Amino acid sequence: MLEKIKDLVLKIKQEKPLILNISNEVSLDFIANGLLSLGASPIMSKAEEEMEDLVKISQVVVINPGTLNPAFVSLCKQACHFANQLNKPIILDPVGAGASRYRTETCKALLNEFDIAMIRGNASEIMALFNASQKTKGVESLLASEQAIDAAKNLSETYQAAIVISGKEDFIIDQDLMAKLDRGSPLMPSVTGTGCLLTAVIAAFHAVEKDRFTAAKIATLFYCLCGEIAAKKAEAPGSFKMHFIDALHTIPERV
Amino acid sequence: MLEKIKDLVLKIKQEKPLILNISNEVSLDFIANGLLSLGASPIMSKAEEEMEDLVKISQVVVINPGTLNPAFVSLCKQACHFANQLNKPIILDPVGAGASRYRTETCKALLNEFDIAMIRGNASEIMALFNASQKTKGVESLLASEQAIDAAKNLSETYQAAIVISGKEDFIIDQDLMAKLDRGSPLMPSVTGTGCLLTAVIAAFHAVEKDRFTAAKIATLFYCLCGEIAAKKAEAPGSFKMHFIDALHTIPERV
Amino acid sequence: MLEKIKDLVLKIKQEKPLILNISNEVSLDFIANGLLSLGASPIMSKAEEEMEDLVKISQVVVINPGTLNPAFVSLCKQACHFANQLNKPIILDPVGAGASRYRTETCKALLNEFDIAMIRGNASEIMALFNASQKTKGVESLLASEQAIDAAKNLSETYQAAIVISGKEDFIIDQDLMAKLDRGSPLMPSVTGTGCLLTAVIAAFHAVEKDRFTAAKIATLFYCLCGEIAAKKAEAPGSFKMHFIDALHTIPERV
Repeated sequence: MLEKIKDLVLKIKQEKPLILNISNEVSLDFIANGLLSLGASPIMSKAEEEMEDLVKISQVVVINPGTLNPAFVSLCKQACHFANQLNKPIILDPVGAGASRYRTETCKALLNEFDIAMIRGNASEIMALFNASQKTKGVESLLASEQAIDAAKNLSETYQAAIVISGKEDFIIDQDLMAKLDRGSPLMPSVTGTGCLLTAVIAAFHAVEKDRFTAAKIATLFYCLCGEIAAKKAEAPGSFKMHFIDALHTIPERV
Repeated sequence: MLEKIKDLVLKIKQEKPLILNISNEVSLDFIANGLLSLGASPIMSKAEEEMEDLVKISQVVVINPGTLNPAFVSLCKQACHFANQLNKPIILDPVGAGASRYRTETCKALLNEFDIAMIRGNASEIMALFNASQKTKGVESLLASEQAIDAAKNLSETYQAAIVISGKEDFIIDQDLMAKLDRGSPLMPSVTGTGCLLTAVIAAFHAVEKDRFTAAKIATLFYCLCGEIAAKKAEAPGSFKMHFIDALHTIPERV
Repeated sequence: MLEKIKDLVLKIKQEKPLILNISNEVSLDFIANGLLSLGASPIMSKAEEEMEDLVKISQVVVINPGTLNPAFVSLCKQACHFANQLNKPIILDPVGAGASRYRTETCKALLNEFDIAMIRGNASEIMALFNASQKTKGVESLLASEQAIDAAKNLSETYQAAIVISGKEDFIIDQDLMAKLDRGSPLMPSVTGTGCLLTAVIAAFHAVEKDRFTAAKIATLFYCLCGEIAAKKAEAPGSFKMHFIDALHTIPERV
């Protein structure tokens, strides 16, 4: 695993893949700084007028409808439309799905209308996509992971997508493939946007590793290692965040 | 006071109250990270479509119209409408009131139309709400605190709201109650959003302490202590900000 | 040069000039924190309703259409309109010009319609403004600086504006004047918004130094020194960013 991580991280630093983020407003700075530290190139957009141009020059498109509204939903759909047309993989981050019907239904509409390669969410977001009757406590997950695995397997079959469930344990599921990771740091959910940035980091790995299951698994493991490195240097969320961004810049020496 | 701070901070960490922030775009990341570090759960929204759902699951609603425009004002009004309907307390942060008539008038309209439990601003913002003829120098306060106290007392009576005036000295005023704090660090205004985050932190304390005067006083004192802790570790705004977020994570050992 | 830097930094700390930022959403927090650390006063706005009021109380207006859309373009035009009417200098940051035709054409339209005092961009952005047929790789620059210098000289003549080209080497060009700086740190482009914040810092220097060529040159040198100071304390982008914000707070002791 370590050699594979190193290989992909080096490829990202060499190729500097451009990741187009149609993202919520809260995490823009953190996503951009995380991708830059890793060696990828972030670009953000709020305009349908430039979507075709930007999708064309991007390697992967990340759709993160956290602070959505009708104009933003329309923007997401246009980005997905051009991504499908131009064969650029789409990764969906269903931020806060379940917290409001609007978020859940928007994510479901995107899944039904477009070819989405991967979905990355916490257990309650994945559950909400599977069953709109579930309720989440805001953007934080409190549900048992077992139910979420079943939901993810079902979503993966239905939408032919790889699913990453983030939490204390991470699960990467792609139809009959499944990997489980039990790494990272409990400080990770204390920094806003750690989920959003993981989605963007998976996108960067997928830009240099065409096998999406491998890309998601290696990216998630790398991300957890960065969390562990940061946790050795920090005991609270402020300094943890700084060391975490620093860790994304390095090439891990051991797993 | 120390026992009360500890008690409320522990309650926040246990109950993880969900704070809905209808907030300006500049402070979103700082507010979210500050609330998470404290142990509360932040959620942000830009959509009328989900406002009722989100107000329902939130404990307190923070209205912070810093980067307002007509769509955002409409959003604020909808959030206030549902908060009043569902009996969730509203805390208003009149960012930059006085800097433009549009900001001042928007905040006044919110106060006139809805039942606002608390207002947290600097002296010039509080003055501007009291008297639209006052001019502020952007979002920083230069006015004498004495005038602001009179303005706050008047606002408190008129709108039946508690008022927090932030600055070198902080004043918490609720009709005939008043507390004065002379704590904190001069580095606090050198970090953008320290006022906005204080408003959100007061909201988190109010979620676990129903007496709003006590909640505002204890939250402000706790916030100032965090500033003092951070100032012992940092001499400039960048490192101060990091240590300040770290300090919000801790339970103070002395006042 | 050192005495001039000290002189202007002290003036900024004394006069606390108000810099109005009509800015992309990604860099809002970084621009605000950078200006505050330096001693200037940032204000951000998204509303045409308050533009005249805010331009009136500001010393310099920064236009940074990174995450633009039609409403934002209209906002930029209104800010430029009042800035020209009220004789407040405008500095344009053509973020991602060349990445999409929409960005390039928006920046060109602003240059053609309004009197812009300065433009600050990387080599590919400056090239894109000069020749819409150029393509950039997102917001990062890969082009040789020589071509960009020719483009900048041409733009400077055409629009009677000073041009700052940022990159490994920085060039400040104002018609027949040119300065070259070979300072800073390779970590600077690893933090999102370092270009955007430089534009805002140039604005703060221009608020206290009416000669725009001098203001741009001294601001850029100061900024590079801050990068060098931060690079001595950090080896990766997360900690570099923190130390960089800290460095903006200080008065340099040597060049």
